[in-house]
Amino acid sequence: MIIIMRMGASQEEIQHVVHRVEELGYQTHLSQGEERTIIGVIGDERPLDKDRMGRMQGIERIVPILRPFKLASRDFQPSDSTFLVNDHTVGGTQITIMAGPCAVESREQILETAQLVRDAGAHLLRGGAFKPRTSPYSFQGLGQEGLEYLAEAGAATELPIVTEVMAPEQVALVGQYADVLQVGTRNMQNYALLHAVGESDLPVLLKRGMMCTIEELLMSAEYIMSHGNRRVMLCERGIRTFETYTRNTLDINAVPVLKELTHLPVIVDPSHATGKWNLVSAVSRAAVAAGADGLIVEVHPRPEQALSAGGQSLRATRFAELMAQLKRVAQAVDRAL
Amino acid sequence: MIIIMRMGASQEEIQHVVHRVEELGYQTHLSQGEERTIIGVIGDERPLDKDRMGRMQGIERIVPILRPFKLASRDFQPSDSTFLVNDHTVGGTQITIMAGPCAVESREQILETAQLVRDAGAHLLRGGAFKPRTSPYSFQGLGQEGLEYLAEAGAATELPIVTEVMAPEQVALVGQYADVLQVGTRNMQNYALLHAVGESDLPVLLKRGMMCTIEELLMSAEYIMSHGNRRVMLCERGIRTFETYTRNTLDINAVPVLKELTHLPVIVDPSHATGKWNLVSAVSRAAVAAGADGLIVEVHPRPEQALSAGGQSLRATRFAELMAQLKRVAQAVDRAL
Amino acid sequence: MIIIMRMGASQEEIQHVVHRVEELGYQTHLSQGEERTIIGVIGDERPLDKDRMGRMQGIERIVPILRPFKLASRDFQPSDSTFLVNDHTVGGTQITIMAGPCAVESREQILETAQLVRDAGAHLLRGGAFKPRTSPYSFQGLGQEGLEYLAEAGAATELPIVTEVMAPEQVALVGQYADVLQVGTRNMQNYALLHAVGESDLPVLLKRGMMCTIEELLMSAEYIMSHGNRRVMLCERGIRTFETYTRNTLDINAVPVLKELTHLPVIVDPSHATGKWNLVSAVSRAAVAAGADGLIVEVHPRPEQALSAGGQSLRATRFAELMAQLKRVAQAVDRAL
Amino acid sequence: MIIIMRMGASQEEIQHVVHRVEELGYQTHLSQGEERTIIGVIGDERPLDKDRMGRMQGIERIVPILRPFKLASRDFQPSDSTFLVNDHTVGGTQITIMAGPCAVESREQILETAQLVRDAGAHLLRGGAFKPRTSPYSFQGLGQEGLEYLAEAGAATELPIVTEVMAPEQVALVGQYADVLQVGTRNMQNYALLHAVGESDLPVLLKRGMMCTIEELLMSAEYIMSHGNRRVMLCERGIRTFETYTRNTLDINAVPVLKELTHLPVIVDPSHATGKWNLVSAVSRAAVAAGADGLIVEVHPRPEQALSAGGQSLRATRFAELMAQLKRVAQAVDRAL
Repeated sequence: MIIIMRMGASQEEIQHVVHRVEELGYQTHLSQGEERTIIGVIGDERPLDKDRMGRMQGIERIVPILRPFKLASRDFQPSDSTFLVNDHTVGGTQITIMAGPCAVESREQILETAQLVRDAGAHLLRGGAFKPRTSPYSFQGLGQEGLEYLAEAGAATELPIVTEVMAPEQVALVGQYADVLQVGTRNMQNYALLHAVGESDLPVLLKRGMMCTIEELLMSAEYIMSHGNRRVMLCERGIRTFETYTRNTLDINAVPVLKELTHLPVIVDPSHATGKWNLVSAVSRAAVAAGADGLIVEVHPRPEQALSAGGQSLRATRFAELMAQLKRVAQAVDRAL
Repeated sequence: MIIIMRMGASQEEIQHVVHRVEELGYQTHLSQGEERTIIGVIGDERPLDKDRMGRMQGIERIVPILRPFKLASRDFQPSDSTFLVNDHTVGGTQITIMAGPCAVESREQILETAQLVRDAGAHLLRGGAFKPRTSPYSFQGLGQEGLEYLAEAGAATELPIVTEVMAPEQVALVGQYADVLQVGTRNMQNYALLHAVGESDLPVLLKRGMMCTIEELLMSAEYIMSHGNRRVMLCERGIRTFETYTRNTLDINAVPVLKELTHLPVIVDPSHATGKWNLVSAVSRAAVAAGADGLIVEVHPRPEQALSAGGQSLRATRFAELMAQLKRVAQAVDRAL
Repeated sequence: MIIIMRMGASQEEIQHVVHRVEELGYQTHLSQGEERTIIGVIGDERPLDKDRMGRMQGIERIVPILRPFKLASRDFQPSDSTFLVNDHTVGGTQITIMAGPCAVESREQILETAQLVRDAGAHLLRGGAFKPRTSPYSFQGLGQEGLEYLAEAGAATELPIVTEVMAPEQVALVGQYADVLQVGTRNMQNYALLHAVGESDLPVLLKRGMMCTIEELLMSAEYIMSHGNRRVMLCERGIRTFETYTRNTLDINAVPVLKELTHLPVIVDPSHATGKWNLVSAVSRAAVAAGADGLIVEVHPRPEQALSAGGQSLRATRFAELMAQLKRVAQAVDRAL
Repeated sequence: MIIIMRMGASQEEIQHVVHRVEELGYQTHLSQGEERTIIGVIGDERPLDKDRMGRMQGIERIVPILRPFKLASRDFQPSDSTFLVNDHTVGGTQITIMAGPCAVESREQILETAQLVRDAGAHLLRGGAFKPRTSPYSFQGLGQEGLEYLAEAGAATELPIVTEVMAPEQVALVGQYADVLQVGTRNMQNYALLHAVGESDLPVLLKRGMMCTIEELLMSAEYIMSHGNRRVMLCERGIRTFETYTRNTLDINAVPVLKELTHLPVIVDPSHATGKWNLVSAVSRAAVAAGADGLIVEVHPRPEQALSAGGQSLRATRFAELMAQLKRVAQAVDRAL
């Protein structure tokens, strides 16, 4: 941590900061420039509160040196994490495709979709039983009934299930049916929920908050990992920007950035990142070309009848075409699908 | 709802959309322009899913006409909501000041702060017992012990307590000590929590998500209200933008916008909206001048020793000065403090 | 154009709006809903000023139906535009690679770089002679001397030149040396400059403003085209968001969106879109996979000695590797490089 | 400047960086932490290019210590700048009100508006003769004819004129009629224009780019000042964010931030910052309460007939009411109007 004093900070102010930092068990190093005095803080700064320090008289700015995440960091674990979801390996050279409807609507719908995505080559079945919806008047998901249908569809097709959990008290219930617990974008900083899934023994798909930085995503992964669960997949699903033509802006830069900063697998959600089905194929190809370890794609047998997010779901034929395209792109970057 | 068809959409596509809309119980009106055909949907569009409709062939764009919130809307209740918190009235001509530390750190700290903000004229005591923190390695709050100290400080000063609740299962516990339940910025779209506080009989201070729109804030209020709790205060606390000099950007426009769209009281949090104590007074004055019904301000007896967010807290003397300034500004806009 | 009246707008207000719209030569259609009255405006709405209309009593909101751009639109020209830059075709199945240093620094540097990018397979040489720099104290480019070196390097390698023009009065001078005029991100809405390049007979590379929408980019293209110059390439170069890890956020969604809305070729600038050389390859592959028609990449023989933007430039070996990767990705999406 | 080396950077890499920095004439200071090595660079870092340095092997991040602006900085000039515009003083205790139409539309319109704003107490007359418009098909302003009408209106009312200049070659012409040159939001980083107004002897109203940081605004002021013109007013006019209810988001934080960082006067434009006339009064009061030195407000005798931006203009009566409100708020913060 580097503490930059204001221009004209008094010797007394400087000494007070030095004294306080040393009181907290750190060593300091003073560098008197022409315009500013700088205090270097030596030692593991992670427990220090930048904000708290910053309130002392005469301080202009504080610059952290270390990244605040540790378990999630590539400094901590240099080689890529891979892990099993049932008998499918996530991470490594294989691209993982998770596909299915936004919401489970009926037994028939999810059984049909499961078959369809399975036939096209998907590795996991996605589908929401508990749905976070902006409006209290929208369809909120089938709940436990939806979980049961999902499990049945998974069993019928031998596809592992990934589904969203919205509250700490749902973790046990969802965990009875799901193979991967999904934490949604609106809950990325729901710390009670992160704590609860951190104590689960199921892998977690952690979606980036639409308003959260890459570093905050990694800090939320750190929350889960610090409670014992190391099987975390990070999911870039589009961020909120000023652009209104698309629902969100896929932060494609985040893919190589995450691969650099962390050993955890990186998944991309092209459906939410665009909000429009006709853009999904192009950005899916881009994600694989950029180095993503997998995709989570919305597929619906009859999107125009979907009870939620139909506008961003692919039909069966389009999904099959996409899979064929992705195979070729994966090969071009020395991956397989 | 207005459905805009793509240029060159076929008669068959147009008829299919019309048919589907009418099937759902709406009337339609067709308007054939030179370049585009437009289908007007007549009836209460709120239950319709824009996304779902949008998936039909030949549709370019769908434009909702009605605002998606109802109970929170000024159309629904034209006059300002006011309500009692203990014997203090929120809303109306009075400006409500809530003040206290970011986090309850000890019995002494909160008792001292309560006395201090009381003496300066505050109406409610704020303080966090459960703290949402970006890092799992930071101080997470004193929990129930913190609630007890808060309640003691409230009783000693006769100030009602406002404190954050982070998970549905905490609502009952926090409700035993608090007079107002605060929903934090990271939980604005935690629907399980909104549901739970919606069933509480305590007033709620709902903070705007740092990257949520004004409409989404009102939809979250609608969630709470639709579960029976009508006493919701909306809190503008700064949004996330590209500007990095301040922690957040106070959306001062939101104050008159909310006063126009809703009857609910509007509170401003100048501490989080700036992240710097030396900016708090200026934007607090601005908030009152713009028509806010209250402020929630961080105050700490010794900010440089605060365990969280010290950098944005005011000292006692500075807070007292601010209260004096606010009295003058309140008078200038025909309000009282 | 659809005019949505406020709830409770009076008959007088409605009639006034109808009257005014018809006075302007449009037909109207009235639709009286339960909660809102809607006035449809029939005719080419593009000359109408939304803002101006919006000031009439009783109007809540105005929704345009038609896209405001015409010449740039795919409605206007359904097939992809392709055009020659010297004897290289931009658009079509071929991916166009423009490469070179951020700034021309010396005769030797640009000659060496031109040879190097040529050998690796680039089609155009980029390099800045006039540099827009945030600080008045930074290197501002070599000016006309730089143009001369560029032209010499172009001639020696038979690569066409693309270089930035910053002011209307520079267009003639730059046009003497360049084969493509570049309009930079900070000048995307410099209308005097758009007017001037619109009257030039050289193709234009129009960079998206870092905080401009896709629609605004197309409107700026429309400016140029409306002055007679139809050879416009659109360049997505990263937008400004809340994410601070990268300099900008590459809006990869914009690639398929632009391909849908316009017939103009779409170029991606991975160097500015990331600001970090080690992210350039990944997002370049993504851009080609998403359907871009070309890339403009910063390459420098010795990036650590570059006078500007060294941190985002590739060395020769890295650029050659990237070209090999791009060939494979291009093939995977049925393009050639 | 602080250079943070990557974890595991080799001694050779560290020595290479140290060597290169010392070659450039700086002293260095090495600090070997447990996880990272840090190199302090001693001397005036402003001429150093962060980007360029950053390309050396083994560097993780570079942190500047000094602010990049100098002439505009309060470190350079601690006391507030005030200066005369004709015989009106900008800065100091007086609040300066500039008012008038978005665009000059006719001789009658500007004469009538000048009288009207004068009667209500405005100090300067604003009005656009050259208009930057997103669409090439919109009204582009009356040009020189508009300047003549403006000058006539200014003379008739004894109000100084502030009007926009859009290109370097217009500076001389506009300077013949105007008392203050306005640089618009889209031109804040049009460096050729900044250079040209920097050589003028007229005061400049520099609008913040809707996509630009506070620091970039100050760097653009520095451009103008470095060319000799010290009379620069900074104008916060709203920034672009994800919120779509208002056209822009007024960054009210920027007012106290600018007052802290610079000695230059700070003006707020409530009309563009909201885009809606009915929000203008509230945010105008907020701006004065936050410490702004002035406002620039759109006023039109008949906004519904305005040729541009009618939706954000105030009528005469509303403007007069606003002036009365502002007087009271100004007094409440010890200013006068």
